[in-house]
Amino acid sequence: MESGSEKWNFQGNKKLNASAVSVRRVYNRLMEGINNNQDKKPVVRLCRVDPTDNPRFRTTPEAPDAVATAVHSYNFNSYPPTVGLPEAKRAIASHLSSDLPYQLSPENVFMTVGGTQAINIILPVLARPGANILLPRPGYPQYDSCATCCLLEVRYFDLLPHRGWEVDLDSLEALADDNTVAMVLINPSNPCGNVFTYQHLKRVAEIARKLGIFVISDEVYAHVTFGSNPFVPMGVFSSIVPVITIGSLSKRWLVPGWRTGWIATCDPHGIFLKTGVVKSIISYLEITSDPPTFLQAAIPEILDKTNDDFLSKNINMLRESANILYDLCKEIPCLSCPHKPEGAMAVLVEIKFSRIKDIIDDMDFCAKLAEEESVILLPGVTVGAKNWLRISFAVKTSDLVDGLSRLKAFCLRYSKMP
Amino acid sequence: MESGSEKWNFQGNKKLNASAVSVRRVYNRLMEGINNNQDKKPVVRLCRVDPTDNPRFRTTPEAPDAVATAVHSYNFNSYPPTVGLPEAKRAIASHLSSDLPYQLSPENVFMTVGGTQAINIILPVLARPGANILLPRPGYPQYDSCATCCLLEVRYFDLLPHRGWEVDLDSLEALADDNTVAMVLINPSNPCGNVFTYQHLKRVAEIARKLGIFVISDEVYAHVTFGSNPFVPMGVFSSIVPVITIGSLSKRWLVPGWRTGWIATCDPHGIFLKTGVVKSIISYLEITSDPPTFLQAAIPEILDKTNDDFLSKNINMLRESANILYDLCKEIPCLSCPHKPEGAMAVLVEIKFSRIKDIIDDMDFCAKLAEEESVILLPGVTVGAKNWLRISFAVKTSDLVDGLSRLKAFCLRYSKMP
Ligand SMILES: Cc1ncc(COP(=O)(O)O)c(C=O)c1O
Ligand SMILES: Cc1ncc(COP(=O)(O)O)c(C=O)c1O
Repeated sequence: MESGSEKWNFQGNKKLNASAVSVRRVYNRLMEGINNNQDKKPVVRLCRVDPTDNPRFRTTPEAPDAVATAVHSYNFNSYPPTVGLPEAKRAIASHLSSDLPYQLSPENVFMTVGGTQAINIILPVLARPGANILLPRPGYPQYDSCATCCLLEVRYFDLLPHRGWEVDLDSLEALADDNTVAMVLINPSNPCGNVFTYQHLKRVAEIARKLGIFVISDEVYAHVTFGSNPFVPMGVFSSIVPVITIGSLSKRWLVPGWRTGWIATCDPHGIFLKTGVVKSIISYLEITSDPPTFLQAAIPEILDKTNDDFLSKNINMLRESANILYDLCKEIPCLSCPHKPEGAMAVLVEIKFSRIKDIIDDMDFCAKLAEEESVILLPGVTVGAKNWLRISFAVKTSDLVDGLSRLKAFCLRYSKMP
Repeated sequence: MESGSEKWNFQGNKKLNASAVSVRRVYNRLMEGINNNQDKKPVVRLCRVDPTDNPRFRTTPEAPDAVATAVHSYNFNSYPPTVGLPEAKRAIASHLSSDLPYQLSPENVFMTVGGTQAINIILPVLARPGANILLPRPGYPQYDSCATCCLLEVRYFDLLPHRGWEVDLDSLEALADDNTVAMVLINPSNPCGNVFTYQHLKRVAEIARKLGIFVISDEVYAHVTFGSNPFVPMGVFSSIVPVITIGSLSKRWLVPGWRTGWIATCDPHGIFLKTGVVKSIISYLEITSDPPTFLQAAIPEILDKTNDDFLSKNINMLRESANILYDLCKEIPCLSCPHKPEGAMAVLVEIKFSRIKDIIDDMDFCAKLAEEESVILLPGVTVGAKNWLRISFAVKTSDLVDGLSRLKAFCLRYSKMP
């Protein structure tokens, strides 16, 4: 029998293959390269931001306990309600409200399969023919892939490295038109590692209001800050502009594998209700999958029982790592880190190509570095920062030091200077 | 400050709102109606298929034990690999292979957030401008909603109620053209409650091969059979035609809230690899969320330790319920059940409008029934069977008997006969 592929009417979804730019994809590709190279040094992965790669970053025991209790109760094996389990929504509303000048209600919260699904839901909800969305550059590539999939045009505003990665407000204003539906801000910022100030967020909110566009505030790293700027949720300014907040257990609770997140509508004037955004969110949730019911059921206990020691210990470890990274970078001649990380779990470092030979770009840099030093960094182009590198510091200190010293050796080898 | 919605550039995603036909949506709407009616009889829900609505349908203790062990180990808190945890993929490959004439490999398996996400992944993977897909009518509306969202044209082939819901093979053949990428078959069938024979599945495979289209076999109810036809997976015929199998823990393990499913490519000739389908699946998984890592980690133990007593007890309960339903239906003059259910957890019953007055259609029937009798059935139109009713029998026997006796009273009240 013939087994050729000629007779099958399949030509592949080109849009999909092209649009799937993701940290995951680049990470997978770089790791494949490494895996073929068995006789090399142990691999140091400073590429993806999964804090559990570091055994010191371990979730608080109350969290798995709460999950085990919920699953053992047999009370949470049914399909969850479309919008999420009421007790989870209530707990998250109250958790978020403690940072806001007003109370969110459980109806403002929608449970999602991680921050990832929150993005994958909110973009199609806002999409319509001709619409566009403003994304930060550098940014998080899931927004780009998802926008491409739902035919939402993407326009980029710049974040300014030498102004602590603040938004270029003029370029933001110049981008929007009548078809702009929303802008995205990531705070604390992945990949930049900065934390926006109260004043700057307020300015952004005012401009968004003037432009008539919603703000999507990605706060997956909420409260993961260790510099001088405290975390301020965008929802604080939701009387100026309606805000959609994206959150997740992944980073702060060190459980990215639990795939549990949420969308919260911060909207004291009820504009999302009036404009039909809430209805569209619910419509979309009706045809997508959910976080497991028992995981949702564990959320009230997780939020309630997580103690401050656990949280501050993690913050201290991150601060220490960020300092080590920043200091070691200064010793590497052809790299430059314009802004010391003060939040999230990664930072951007610029490659000074004027001082380097035989390397074409950041992709080439990362491929050669992986090949020669078994160190995996994320090429900046993946996050909209061509010829930069994203370095994750949510890793073991010894890995960080080892990785950076191999990075230094690599840079010295390719240095133009004698 | 003005709080009007006039200034916001949002007009809603109409396609999304319109396409979100789902059992969930109709169920939610009917339940809302009921909830406003506090002074009524206790609600009997024969609408959605969630076996855990019946306390007798309880998952096997090994399943929550395996999950609790995995989450307590702290070894499964990281992001899962894009395609799923290797040990889960291996366990599912071997589980499925026991029904096949050849061995699936772990690379054939992709972990998904329930059968729902499996559908939501495979349809966009097959979509390209101009493409169409053949769906069974009656069918499962998630396919319709998802196809609309990814601009895949839908064409329906009929299932024939008076031939045990077999596929109308002539209409199937007539529908396909050069732009047809695949057909979907649901076996055991939701909503029809039938189980396809070996011979019929083989005919379908041969026709699909002739047409040059892939077969998506939705086997979310695999092995949930209690009539004379045994369950035969479509993968048995994958040397005739490449088959994508969709599976889930939801129904057989009575844990729909766990949201854990899979896609398996049954394809001994490697056609999905050659045509790029596998690559597209991986691309799409790179930008979508996953089932929690610890849930995936529990799968080998769940599959291994589930004992036959648990499975056969559930099958016996379903057989008993199906018999009660079928027998009681015969006593209701204006309803007709053409085919005794022999698989899955629901069945379709026709409303004989020639014998009924003052009811317009199935929607109206279900709305009035909910209002007057607090019994919730799914209007057939939701699953492509206008003027039929879908009745779930994965419920408590007392609820089934109570619900059907109210249904009978309702029908007698609206009967044209004296
Ligand atoms: C800015 C940002 N948003 C969203 C996500 C996705 O969140 P989750 O891991 O909960 O899916 C991430 C994950 O790294 C992120 O960095
Ligand atoms: C035919 C069919 N396919 C897919 C699904 C979705 O499966 P899951 O509940 O695992 O998401 C269902 C659920 O009822 C179904 O009946």
